[in-house]
Amino acid sequence: MKNKIQNIKTSNHKTWQSAAILALFFFFSIELMAQDKQQFLSAKESEPANFEWMQGFPPAPDKVLHTWDGSFFKFPAIRWSVVHMREILPTQNVSRGLEASEALQYNLDSHIDSLTFIPWNSKKPMSWEASLWENYTDGMIVLHKGKVVYERYFAELTETDVHAVMSLTKSFTGTLASILVAEGTLDDKKLASFYVPELKKSAYGDATVRQVMDMTTALKYSEDYSNPKADIWEFSAAGNPLPKPKDYKGPVGYYEYLETVEKEGEHGEIFGYKTINADALGWIISRATGKSVSQLLSEKIWSKIGMEQDAYYQVDSKGIAFAGGGLSAGLRDLARFGELIRNKGKYNGEQIFPQAAVEDIMKGGSKEAFAKSNHPNLKGWSYRNMWWMTENENAAFAARGVHGQTIYIDPAAEMIIVRLASHPIAGNAANDATSLPAYKALANYLSNKN
Amino acid sequence: MKNKIQNIKTSNHKTWQSAAILALFFFFSIELMAQDKQQFLSAKESEPANFEWMQGFPPAPDKVLHTWDGSFFKFPAIRWSVVHMREILPTQNVSRGLEASEALQYNLDSHIDSLTFIPWNSKKPMSWEASLWENYTDGMIVLHKGKVVYERYFAELTETDVHAVMSLTKSFTGTLASILVAEGTLDDKKLASFYVPELKKSAYGDATVRQVMDMTTALKYSEDYSNPKADIWEFSAAGNPLPKPKDYKGPVGYYEYLETVEKEGEHGEIFGYKTINADALGWIISRATGKSVSQLLSEKIWSKIGMEQDAYYQVDSKGIAFAGGGLSAGLRDLARFGELIRNKGKYNGEQIFPQAAVEDIMKGGSKEAFAKSNHPNLKGWSYRNMWWMTENENAAFAARGVHGQTIYIDPAAEMIIVRLASHPIAGNAANDATSLPAYKALANYLSNKN
Repeated sequence: MKNKIQNIKTSNHKTWQSAAILALFFFFSIELMAQDKQQFLSAKESEPANFEWMQGFPPAPDKVLHTWDGSFFKFPAIRWSVVHMREILPTQNVSRGLEASEALQYNLDSHIDSLTFIPWNSKKPMSWEASLWENYTDGMIVLHKGKVVYERYFAELTETDVHAVMSLTKSFTGTLASILVAEGTLDDKKLASFYVPELKKSAYGDATVRQVMDMTTALKYSEDYSNPKADIWEFSAAGNPLPKPKDYKGPVGYYEYLETVEKEGEHGEIFGYKTINADALGWIISRATGKSVSQLLSEKIWSKIGMEQDAYYQVDSKGIAFAGGGLSAGLRDLARFGELIRNKGKYNGEQIFPQAAVEDIMKGGSKEAFAKSNHPNLKGWSYRNMWWMTENENAAFAARGVHGQTIYIDPAAEMIIVRLASHPIAGNAANDATSLPAYKALANYLSNKN
Repeated sequence: MKNKIQNIKTSNHKTWQSAAILALFFFFSIELMAQDKQQFLSAKESEPANFEWMQGFPPAPDKVLHTWDGSFFKFPAIRWSVVHMREILPTQNVSRGLEASEALQYNLDSHIDSLTFIPWNSKKPMSWEASLWENYTDGMIVLHKGKVVYERYFAELTETDVHAVMSLTKSFTGTLASILVAEGTLDDKKLASFYVPELKKSAYGDATVRQVMDMTTALKYSEDYSNPKADIWEFSAAGNPLPKPKDYKGPVGYYEYLETVEKEGEHGEIFGYKTINADALGWIISRATGKSVSQLLSEKIWSKIGMEQDAYYQVDSKGIAFAGGGLSAGLRDLARFGELIRNKGKYNGEQIFPQAAVEDIMKGGSKEAFAKSNHPNLKGWSYRNMWWMTENENAAFAARGVHGQTIYIDPAAEMIIVRLASHPIAGNAANDATSLPAYKALANYLSNKN
């Protein structure tokens, strides 16, 4: 993968295509096999401070990062970029409002770092702390029974920064849709094209909102990045906020692309994790409410639970938020969101949105539809309202994004884990082996503690 | 002027040049003569809600605004854009920190709207409220003795938005420099090239930091936008964050441009209001401290006085903040800053930075140097540390930005006025006649009140 990224050739003539490559990395969906780590600098070695990306007045020529030559998202530069998306891309604010934030309560547990677990396909125990370094963690926070028991920042991230959350964005889109369904503003049994007539001739023409929410749509659409003709490239090019080249004939903006997606197979049968479903859902909820995804997130959640920082979305050239992967947010604010979900929409005693919105997530999706998809490491899981349901004994579920982002909610253990990271490998298969069993070990530890 | 803007031709081949045109509007420095208003839609008629710029999912094709075709900053679209800079341009955050904001105290005075004054070159009294509509005001706040006596939002601006402050940015840069001088971190008697050796061969090579701060540098540099060969275009093109065209041979980024500026005349003799001085000063203070202008503004001011919103800077393709005109901030936060200056660096009883930093501003600049410049409407004024000194009986001074932005500080009347606006004419000569006498009338009214 490293070589693949480094071999991306940038032609002066078509710099926009290289820019499109950047966009790709936000919504990488392929569960790449973990590769030999030897080829990458370690977490410590790859810290941005060692490279001075975009530092200095001005930065040295080889330390300047751009979207249009792909440099911005190459490892190890990505370790800087995940904390600085807005400095390279146009963005839309998600306002926390003007009220004071509500401080999280702390009950730090110094034993967590030395907690051990057995990684998948291994017999050697690994410590919690070692797993953080192993996975190029930028930020890790754990809440137990609503209190912070663990919090650490690494590399470029501090408590006053926000971090690209990649595909966690989808779970925000799905949660907003679930809230709107529970509130009666959105009918998940209706067709997507009921809300967005422009989608009538596309694959979404006869897909229900529910099928979009659960990604059981049958789309002729490939996110295989290794194929230069994969549809993902066209989607990326459409959503790229830079001016299109003169000879560009493709769709402009995320929505125009969605109108072109063709059907392949029957809706409702197979889970197919495809970013464009989240953008279709973003379109649907915007049409159902007359509000942008940014505005909805602010109104329904961000301004309601004492967030301490505004968040933001990357936008296309028409100002449309990238609902499939464009959000950046702060570590503690993501934990607040996780806690809001764990408490079924209740926060500090107040019901922020209908409990039914979370109950509909927690009941899980179709295990059959999930089993037919290609996720060999996630056996028995399901997918519901753009959340990954482990279906384990604790009924844990998660938002998951490439390069190691997660919000992991364990209802039985009353635990929230948020990890922000900049792993050199996009696909989460590369870090699941040393993180999912760690989360389970921590859940056990915390459950047995009191 | 309207025709000039509307006649800007955009060639597909050189869209970047059109983008450069946009940048121009941020730091227009020519005091344009007020023109016949008849040719522009009124403030009411031009409200963004009447046009739906960038509204809808997606916006209608003729409602999409871009930097690269100039549409973003054409009147009346500019009325939307001033509140949404980050949605079109890359930006750098100015953090307020995570603490709760400190609420402003209120003592609203409902008589202010009907207060009257005589505009320059007129005999007919005008009401305060009428002047706001006359000047395409987006936000107006007045503090008297530290309390809000007047606050209104118009058009696209609300209390949870930020607004482009154009050249008010310069006064922030100048204030930061004045603080650093007072703290002993910056020596204003040293040459600019002492801090930035790269400037040695440029006009700045033998200019002192003091001359840069007071804009008495002798530069071969024209901001005459009507001349297609004016230097301003080259500066704009250099600072444009979009990728440069293949055949572009000019400097890349604000700093590289500054290295090319030639000397014309002798430093220290004539005040010459040129945006590039603020960017040179931004470079100097970054080198003197090792910190970006964004970081300095956050550390010295934004995180210190209970601000309620983060601010942000527009950046060039190297991530360098546009210290001459790239700041966006909230109305009330700008008022807090004005109050901090009026109280000589003290805020809510705490000395935030040395009093000497403001005293050095308030002693004013050289009236002789100012008189030799071309500001026929601002007779007797001076310019100090990037603030405009009225030198009137109240010792009022102001930050001023194109399209009607101002922070007006009247020490004798214990009054701060902040106006954010999107006047169709960039140069402030177009609105000074109906605002500066209004500010004076309000100062008199408030002074006589108690």
